Amino acid sequence: MDNTTRLAEMLAEIGADWAILTSPDSVCFATGHVVPIEIGPSPFSGGPTTAFVSRDGVAGVVCPNTDAGQAIDCEEISYAGFACSVVDQVSNYLAAVKTMLEKLGVVGRVAVETASLTAALADLLPAERSVIDDSLKRLKAIKTTREIGLLTRSAEVAALGQKEAAGISISGRTELDVLNGIRARMETEAGTRCALAGEFLAGIERSSTLGLMPGAYELQKGDPVVCDLAPRVQGYWGDSCSSFVVEAEKSDEFAKMHQACFETLQFAISELRPGLKVCDFDKLLRNHLKEYGYSYPHHSGHGIGTSVHEWPRLVPDEAAMIEENMVLMVEPGSYVPGLGGVRCEFMLRVTNSGAVPMATF
Amino acid sequence: MDNTTRLAEMLAEIGADWAILTSPDSVCFATGHVVPIEIGPSPFSGGPTTAFVSRDGVAGVVCPNTDAGQAIDCEEISYAGFACSVVDQVSNYLAAVKTMLEKLGVVGRVAVETASLTAALADLLPAERSVIDDSLKRLKAIKTTREIGLLTRSAEVAALGQKEAAGISISGRTELDVLNGIRARMETEAGTRCALAGEFLAGIERSSTLGLMPGAYELQKGDPVVCDLAPRVQGYWGDSCSSFVVEAEKSDEFAKMHQACFETLQFAISELRPGLKVCDFDKLLRNHLKEYGYSYPHHSGHGIGTSVHEWPRLVPDEAAMIEENMVLMVEPGSYVPGLGGVRCEFMLRVTNSGAVPMATF
Repeated sequence: MDNTTRLAEMLAEIGADWAILTSPDSVCFATGHVVPIEIGPSPFSGGPTTAFVSRDGVAGVVCPNTDAGQAIDCEEISYAGFACSVVDQVSNYLAAVKTMLEKLGVVGRVAVETASLTAALADLLPAERSVIDDSLKRLKAIKTTREIGLLTRSAEVAALGQKEAAGISISGRTELDVLNGIRARMETEAGTRCALAGEFLAGIERSSTLGLMPGAYELQKGDPVVCDLAPRVQGYWGDSCSSFVVEAEKSDEFAKMHQACFETLQFAISELRPGLKVCDFDKLLRNHLKEYGYSYPHHSGHGIGTSVHEWPRLVPDEAAMIEENMVLMVEPGSYVPGLGGVRCEFMLRVTNSGAVPMATF
Repeated sequence: MDNTTRLAEMLAEIGADWAILTSPDSVCFATGHVVPIEIGPSPFSGGPTTAFVSRDGVAGVVCPNTDAGQAIDCEEISYAGFACSVVDQVSNYLAAVKTMLEKLGVVGRVAVETASLTAALADLLPAERSVIDDSLKRLKAIKTTREIGLLTRSAEVAALGQKEAAGISISGRTELDVLNGIRARMETEAGTRCALAGEFLAGIERSSTLGLMPGAYELQKGDPVVCDLAPRVQGYWGDSCSSFVVEAEKSDEFAKMHQACFETLQFAISELRPGLKVCDFDKLLRNHLKEYGYSYPHHSGHGIGTSVHEWPRLVPDEAAMIEENMVLMVEPGSYVPGLGGVRCEFMLRVTNSGAVPMATF
């Protein structure tokens, strides 16, 4: 079953007639229309690219002409956002929305996204409203066969980047230089530019500090590296993290820490299964790593799909049940001042009885 | 005068008490707070990062904790977007907005941005509304001294990328590989990751086709290249375009076309000045290039600042007057099937009597 149909069934369950979707990830989830995101909101848009899905499974997208032509099994109305003349993108967007609402016959109760529904769009919609946020995040968490395929591809692109990483991490190159070398490898494999989240931090101090951004730091022989790569390919994100040492063997102490984290990731693969609560899974991992004497102050992982971080996040107070066909990042790590940082992260698909990594490196 | 003060004065002129800004470029313009954009809307945000500016020049920003700590001369309220626990970003964002509205005492008429004001935010604001779009785009078009400095820096980073481009455009490398090599140079210079707009297209067919994206095409000796680089540095965009040939001299025919476009750019620098209408300037450029037998089907350029494309766009029907301290991209080009594409683009600052390029390459 495709996501438009799944969303239509969900609308019936929550008593809504239409979903009106305004976040790039929800538009892609529901219709397959990939909104360009890597320079932020397009200067050629007059409002959020918007998807419309009815409880009968009818779907539409309103987008600027700069990203038109993607529609499959979906009405598409594109408006002049970019042209060789004066263009009023806002008026054009709103006019296109009106046309779409009439064409599809949008009436009844509409379910909307709180964080991104604009006031100007809201003014054009039927007055009866539901909030779709919670139902939608749960629907997104369970992937379709098509989505598993797309996420596997994204996992493979990320894994290819990871395989490239150690080889091009050479002393004298900057973090940003290496990160872009990796990006080049991933994008060439994907055949297109990819939005990229993540980090690449080298050196004992930088790799053991959370929250830094890659910078002009020059790699030195023996530097530990935390290499977190999350490319978006065809609207779906891959994610991954590896740790290694620049042009040298790991010291015994660093190797011990690395081994503990990697073994905890292997333990996670063996423990993850449907029916387990997220908080219990999270606790298992933290306790397992603690036996080696290490710990991490961040989440144990998160869902991933058309957004790089989706529900459920693997945190100590998340009571959600793990279900088949969830795709979860799992990322045990350790950050020790004077020694460096390690994080080992795979994408795991939850099967009917366990879990499998979608790509390894 | 800083932009907060300029915006405050504008509010008085349009009879509004507060500006409520919700686009990343307007937030940066008004307060200097740089919203991360390169992976699209943050998965850790519960609504748009929002700026508040009063007609008395008081300013505030509400942002997720992932991009907090930037405030200068500005109240900042950050909310939990990312934490090692279950987080409801939407509720946290709306609660932070409420606190900010009370703290600043937001009452009276609020001026809002149509394309990005969310319905949930609108529900919290005073009922009296003005649309700020048109006044704000005109205010943004005239740059302050600080902004000229930031844009000069961005122009220099782009120019450095252009200088790198020809050198690393080697046969056998893909467009994406070279583009990321250039990106590495620019980002290392900037010391941080930069959002990047633009294109890198090689070969006769690809360089002469508009609207393509860089891909896995492998460069060949003798390929013409259109290299358009627009990095965002500290919230301000640089833009640039050069054209060259891979590992070979230009053919006579290509050199002639290149010379005509570059000479038209030089002509633009000599003609651009305050008091000229945009449409007249646009016509001058098109007519000048036409004398050489070439033409382009796109705009002649555009404003640039905290957005990569700002008002005024240099198109045949834009009647706006060119003013001192506008920063305008000017980009004559020619795209000839069987020969290839050329585009020559500099950032020009309009002075009190003419125009100067902000960086050359």
